[in-house]
Amino acid sequence: MEKNLIKHVRERAPLVHSITNYVTVNDVANILLACGGSPIMADDAQEAAEITSICGGLNINIGTLNARTIESMLLAGKRANDLGHITVLDPVGAGASKLRTQTAMELLEKVRFSVIRGNVSELKTLWGEAGKTKGVDADIADRVTEENLDEMVQFAKRFSEKTGAVIAMTGAIDIIADKNTAYAIRNGNPLMSKITGTGCMLSGVVAAYCVANPKNILEATAAAVAAMGLSGEIAFERLKKTELGGTSSYRTFIIDAMSNMSDEILEGGMKLETR
Amino acid sequence: MEKNLIKHVRERAPLVHSITNYVTVNDVANILLACGGSPIMADDAQEAAEITSICGGLNINIGTLNARTIESMLLAGKRANDLGHITVLDPVGAGASKLRTQTAMELLEKVRFSVIRGNVSELKTLWGEAGKTKGVDADIADRVTEENLDEMVQFAKRFSEKTGAVIAMTGAIDIIADKNTAYAIRNGNPLMSKITGTGCMLSGVVAAYCVANPKNILEATAAAVAAMGLSGEIAFERLKKTELGGTSSYRTFIIDAMSNMSDEILEGGMKLETR
Amino acid sequence: MEKNLIKHVRERAPLVHSITNYVTVNDVANILLACGGSPIMADDAQEAAEITSICGGLNINIGTLNARTIESMLLAGKRANDLGHITVLDPVGAGASKLRTQTAMELLEKVRFSVIRGNVSELKTLWGEAGKTKGVDADIADRVTEENLDEMVQFAKRFSEKTGAVIAMTGAIDIIADKNTAYAIRNGNPLMSKITGTGCMLSGVVAAYCVANPKNILEATAAAVAAMGLSGEIAFERLKKTELGGTSSYRTFIIDAMSNMSDEILEGGMKLETR
Repeated sequence: MEKNLIKHVRERAPLVHSITNYVTVNDVANILLACGGSPIMADDAQEAAEITSICGGLNINIGTLNARTIESMLLAGKRANDLGHITVLDPVGAGASKLRTQTAMELLEKVRFSVIRGNVSELKTLWGEAGKTKGVDADIADRVTEENLDEMVQFAKRFSEKTGAVIAMTGAIDIIADKNTAYAIRNGNPLMSKITGTGCMLSGVVAAYCVANPKNILEATAAAVAAMGLSGEIAFERLKKTELGGTSSYRTFIIDAMSNMSDEILEGGMKLETR
Repeated sequence: MEKNLIKHVRERAPLVHSITNYVTVNDVANILLACGGSPIMADDAQEAAEITSICGGLNINIGTLNARTIESMLLAGKRANDLGHITVLDPVGAGASKLRTQTAMELLEKVRFSVIRGNVSELKTLWGEAGKTKGVDADIADRVTEENLDEMVQFAKRFSEKTGAVIAMTGAIDIIADKNTAYAIRNGNPLMSKITGTGCMLSGVVAAYCVANPKNILEATAAAVAAMGLSGEIAFERLKKTELGGTSSYRTFIIDAMSNMSDEILEGGMKLETR
Repeated sequence: MEKNLIKHVRERAPLVHSITNYVTVNDVANILLACGGSPIMADDAQEAAEITSICGGLNINIGTLNARTIESMLLAGKRANDLGHITVLDPVGAGASKLRTQTAMELLEKVRFSVIRGNVSELKTLWGEAGKTKGVDADIADRVTEENLDEMVQFAKRFSEKTGAVIAMTGAIDIIADKNTAYAIRNGNPLMSKITGTGCMLSGVVAAYCVANPKNILEATAAAVAAMGLSGEIAFERLKKTELGGTSSYRTFIIDAMSNMSDEILEGGMKLETR
C-alpha cells in the first residue's frame, strides 16, 4: 500500500461537501477535521451544486433524507460528476423504507459514485433492486463471516463491476473491492456498534482520503476503513483504563484516535488481507 | 418492581423510531444505544409511517417542529396506534408558542400515547388547553416540591385518567403516575439542568424500556426515570474527581453511566416512593 | 472593563433564541448553558417571532440555511428589533455561495444587528457587497496579522459605522470594534480550528453576554471573545496532560472550561489591547 496516504490528507486538507443526516452530522464534521480534511455542509437546492464546486469531494448520506434534500443530493451529485470530483454514497437504511431504497437507486442511476459504503443489508438491497431483471442473489447472507467471505468478496467485486464504484462493505469483517481486487480488513471492535454514527463518520473519512489520493481510490478507501477500525481498537484499549467509562467516552476516544492517526500508526495496526 | 426490566431491554434491543428535534438528536440516539435499545430517526412524511412499522416504539418530540415534521408525527403516530406500538410524547416547549401548544394538543387528540413525559409547565399547558371547557386548575404551582407533592400527584393521576397515558412529570422530584398509582422519584442532580437534552434523552429511554416491558408500562417508565436520575448522580460523583471537569464532561459521564446501568445498580440506587 | 460581566450572565441566565445550523446546534445549546445562559431553538416561520418575544436575545447563524429557515430568520429579526432585543449575526460561509452572501446581505438590510461575528473572509464579503457602489477595499488581506492589524482595525471600525453593529472579526488575532473603539484580543489556540463549531459557539456566548450586559455591548462582546479564547487555552493545557487525548476531548474540555469561567479567571487570562 502507498506509504503516504494519510500524510497527503493532512497536507492537502481536502474540503468535503457532506449532504448528510442531522443525527450524526456533528460527528462527521469533527472526524473530517480529525482525519485531516475540512468539512462543509449545505443541503439547500439553491446552493448545493455551487458549494460542491468549491470542494474536492462530495459525501451523500441518506440517513434523514427528505424531499428537499433529495433534490439537493441529485444536483450536487451531477455537478460533482461534471467536475470529476470524488463522490461517496452512504445508503443509510436502504431497504428499511421505499423512500430510502428508491432514493438510493435514483442516486445510483443519475450519479457516478467513486465509492459506495454500506453494511451488507444496504448493499444487498441496492444490488437486489439494481439486479432485479437478472434475478437477485438471494443466498447471500446478512453478515460477512469467515465462512461466507469468498462469496461476499465475489459479490462486492460484481457490484463494483456493475456500478464502477469501489465497494466498501463494512461489518465485523470489512470488504473493500473494485472489480479486480478485494481486501478483507479485520480491524475494529464490537463496541463500535453501540455508538451512533461510526458508519457515517467512516464515509466522511473515506471521502477525505480519496480526495487527497485520487489515483488510489481503492487503497485510500481501504486505508480509511482500516484507520477507522484501528481508531476503534485504540479507543477501546483507552476505555478499558478509564474508570466508569462507557459508550459516550468511547465515541470521544474514537475521534481522538483518528485525530492522532498517521501512516506509521496505521501500518503498525492494519489487519488487511488481499482476497 | 419487576426485577429484570433492564435485562429485558438489553436482551430485546428494542428499535425505537424517534421524530425528534435536531438540537439533541445525537444524544437521543446515543443514549438509546447506551440503555440497550436501538435508534432510527426518520421524519419525512413519505417514510415516517413505514419506518414506524418496523419498530417497536415511537418517540415523538416537538422540540424543533415544523410543518413538514408535524405531518410526519401524525402519520407515524396513527400507524403506531394501528399496530399497538408503544408511543411516547415529549411536548417540548408546549406553552412557549401557539404552534407548540396546538401541535401537542393535536397529537393528543389524534394519537393515543402510552407515556407523556414533560416538565410541570408543559404538562400544565396541555391540561389547561385540554381542560379549557371545564376550567383550568390554575393553582397548581410550577415546580414539584415537598409541599405541593400530593397536589401534583393528584394532577398527574387525573391527567393520566383523561389521556389514558402514563404521566412522567419530571423535575427536582419526578412523579410517574397512571390513574391509580403514582411514584415519586428523588434521583438526579441539579447540574443535569446545565446540559441540553436530558429530558429528550429520558423520553428515548422511556420508549426503549416500555417496548421491552410492554406489560409494565408504569413500572418501566418509573425505572427509566430513576435510571436517568441515577446516571446523573453517578456522573456527578465521577465529575467531582475530574480535575477541570465541567458540564460537557458531565454530559459524557451521564451517557456512560446509562451504558453501564443494570437492574442491580438501579435497585441499589433508586429513590422511589409510592404515593 | 466592567468587573461583573460574567457574574451578570450567571445571575440573569439570559434566554437566547438561536436559529442556527444543524451541524453545531448541540454545541451551541450546551455552551449557552455552560456560560450561564439558557438556549431555545425554533426555526419555523409559524413560531420564530413568537419564540423570540419571550427571549432576551436572538442569534442568527446561516450555516445550513434553507428557504424555510431564511424566512424565519427575517421574521424573528424584525420582531427582535421591534422589541429592542440583542441581535447577533453569524454569516457562516458568506462568500461561499450566492445564497449565503445574498441572505447575509438581506439580513443586514432588514434587521439591525447588535453584533456581527465572523471571520475575515465572511466580513470582507459582506463589506464588498454592501460597499459595491463605492468600490471594494480589495487590499485587505484574508488574515489578521501583526502587520495588517492597524488596517484591519480601521476596516472593523468603518464596518461598525456602516452597520451600527459591534464587529467581532475572529481569527488568530480577534478584533472587536465599534466605530470609535477597537480591541485586539490574542487569546485562543490554533487547535480550536480542528473542531467544528467554535465560531458558532462563540456567537451564542456573545449573545448571552450582551443580553446580560445590555449597556456594554462592546465590552460584553470582547469579554465573550476573550472567554472563548481563554477556554481554548485552558482546554489545551488540560489536553496536554491527557494521555491519548485528541480533538474530541479538546471540544469537551473547551465547553468544560467555559462552564467554569468567571470574571476572576477571565481577568487573569485575558490578553486584550485597546487599538
